[in-house]
Amino acid sequence: MTPTRAYAALAQGSTVEPFTIERRDLRADDVAMDILYCGVCHSDLHQIRNDWGNTIYPVVPGHEIVGRVTATGPAVTKYKPGDLVAVGCLVDSCRVCEPCEEGLEQFCEKQATMTYNGHDRHDRSVTFGGYASHLVTSERFVLRVPEGLDPERAAPLLCAGITTWSPLRHWKVGAGAKVAVVGLGGLGHMGVKLAVGLGAEVTVITTSPGKQEDALKLGAQDVLISSDNDAMAAASGRFDFILDTVPVPHDLAPYLMLARRDGAVVVVGMVDMVPSFHSGILLAGRRVLSASIIGGIPETQELLDFCAEKNILPECETIAMADVNKAFERMNRSDVKYRFVIDMSTFEQG
Amino acid sequence: MTPTRAYAALAQGSTVEPFTIERRDLRADDVAMDILYCGVCHSDLHQIRNDWGNTIYPVVPGHEIVGRVTATGPAVTKYKPGDLVAVGCLVDSCRVCEPCEEGLEQFCEKQATMTYNGHDRHDRSVTFGGYASHLVTSERFVLRVPEGLDPERAAPLLCAGITTWSPLRHWKVGAGAKVAVVGLGGLGHMGVKLAVGLGAEVTVITTSPGKQEDALKLGAQDVLISSDNDAMAAASGRFDFILDTVPVPHDLAPYLMLARRDGAVVVVGMVDMVPSFHSGILLAGRRVLSASIIGGIPETQELLDFCAEKNILPECETIAMADVNKAFERMNRSDVKYRFVIDMSTFEQG
Repeated sequence: MTPTRAYAALAQGSTVEPFTIERRDLRADDVAMDILYCGVCHSDLHQIRNDWGNTIYPVVPGHEIVGRVTATGPAVTKYKPGDLVAVGCLVDSCRVCEPCEEGLEQFCEKQATMTYNGHDRHDRSVTFGGYASHLVTSERFVLRVPEGLDPERAAPLLCAGITTWSPLRHWKVGAGAKVAVVGLGGLGHMGVKLAVGLGAEVTVITTSPGKQEDALKLGAQDVLISSDNDAMAAASGRFDFILDTVPVPHDLAPYLMLARRDGAVVVVGMVDMVPSFHSGILLAGRRVLSASIIGGIPETQELLDFCAEKNILPECETIAMADVNKAFERMNRSDVKYRFVIDMSTFEQG
Repeated sequence: MTPTRAYAALAQGSTVEPFTIERRDLRADDVAMDILYCGVCHSDLHQIRNDWGNTIYPVVPGHEIVGRVTATGPAVTKYKPGDLVAVGCLVDSCRVCEPCEEGLEQFCEKQATMTYNGHDRHDRSVTFGGYASHLVTSERFVLRVPEGLDPERAAPLLCAGITTWSPLRHWKVGAGAKVAVVGLGGLGHMGVKLAVGLGAEVTVITTSPGKQEDALKLGAQDVLISSDNDAMAAASGRFDFILDTVPVPHDLAPYLMLARRDGAVVVVGMVDMVPSFHSGILLAGRRVLSASIIGGIPETQELLDFCAEKNILPECETIAMADVNKAFERMNRSDVKYRFVIDMSTFEQG
């Protein structure tokens, strides 16, 4: 066991603070890494606060992890010390069910093991995330950071990136597709960049007229202000695919109306009750409502490779480990463009 | 103009009664037919009652029509006098928009012309349906009744049939697919027969334990009673495709739960508010909610040909024209297995 410096929330209602955890001795298929960067995801804050009622304290958040391999177990074949690697939301799964075989570990029938606040499948210990100097995890859930991908800005691809990439790919968004991205935060800004990268014509739908300029800078061709009823009505039936990244409960009817025949609205942000809407909105054009959650390991690797090739990177603000509580406060009032990334080399200052 | 005997509701609150309408003189592409049979659809009753607030009185219902060609306009090439033909819910559309070009006239961007309670695109006259002895309509919206398809039982294919066939085809239900059909009425019993015909393993989901035997007779392999919470929980994630034919407002969550990963619930019966449900049900397996409404002309012909080939026919109770008001009463209390068909040769008795 290796004592490892980390930041943890020790109990409900507390912020995160320095805390020492143990990383396990290497199993045969384990990869050990020094963590270089870790993104700050809204779900980190949810877990710290126990918003979902399942937090196990102490909790060490962080599932957008970029690191450098320091050691490998004897069965590891893909990585060697010195390699730049990444770890996302998942660190294990049953590996044998149909979804696992298909590389859709997020839908593992035995429930995948989350990077933090999960239970290790071998010793049932609680998993600790990337707000730490060091990580040990199985090769199968380690991604390669391809050459040319800036490691400092790659971290948010591991959650915000894959959460938007997976539905874009599953719903076959490609060149010329008319895509709307609802909400322009951590998820939304990645949705815009990735859809543009895939060749789509992207419209951002936002409540904030102030985000217009940013949306265009990110590659969107158009912006719709969702409170502008005339503009929304004029856009009825315009889009093949609508990615709804808004994290708070909201009516989906106005966005379903924007889908063309056989078009889809896919929810990736809202984990809450879907307000009642009229079935006629679906009937009128065989429209589809679905949802998507993170993504599997092969498609995460595909995303990293795609971003390296297309030079697509999240917009990040790099912070010191000791400033993460301040970052949570700012994130909570949407004062971030668009993702905080903790630089782990600042750990010593903490 | 040809005076034609029909049954019409003359005003809101009245039943249907004998009424004389005019059928137009043949246009170049028109087909005239004697109506042999006409199915009684629940929407006929909705329109008579003005349940949807759009009824134009007098209204002559009926959009499940089987007839025999009596005359054709000079430009008609597909049909000749004596041919057995059929007409469904649509009698015209713009014919040039993308959906029309694709044969999905139900989604015509200029709105298709309904067989009754619509407006003719040329003279703006109100269209009258199949509760009549005679019909004149454009060749493009006339179907051929293939040899071997019993004309007396074919009529309900034109609405109940195509409404269930279209989504089964659109969602690619085929051999070995695990299909659930929710509700066993006019639509549901066709959904079962057609899905079985396509090679699917079909389970009927019903509130009525009394329908178990009938479901199995229709070809279902299994029956789930929706009030049996244990059975419903055990069936979680079991189905690739769930066809929801229930016409009254109801919670979709219990049926969404039954869909496997990437499985779909498609609503064809409920035209009403969809009650609020938790997005987690969609997120958990990338499940899909959609809806479907009747079908296009090419897929309606495909359905008729498929039914002739596979010897699939609706379960019908044939009635006299004069008994249609009694049939409405029985339909209203679900006392029909599974569709009333009016025999137009009984017209003289009316």
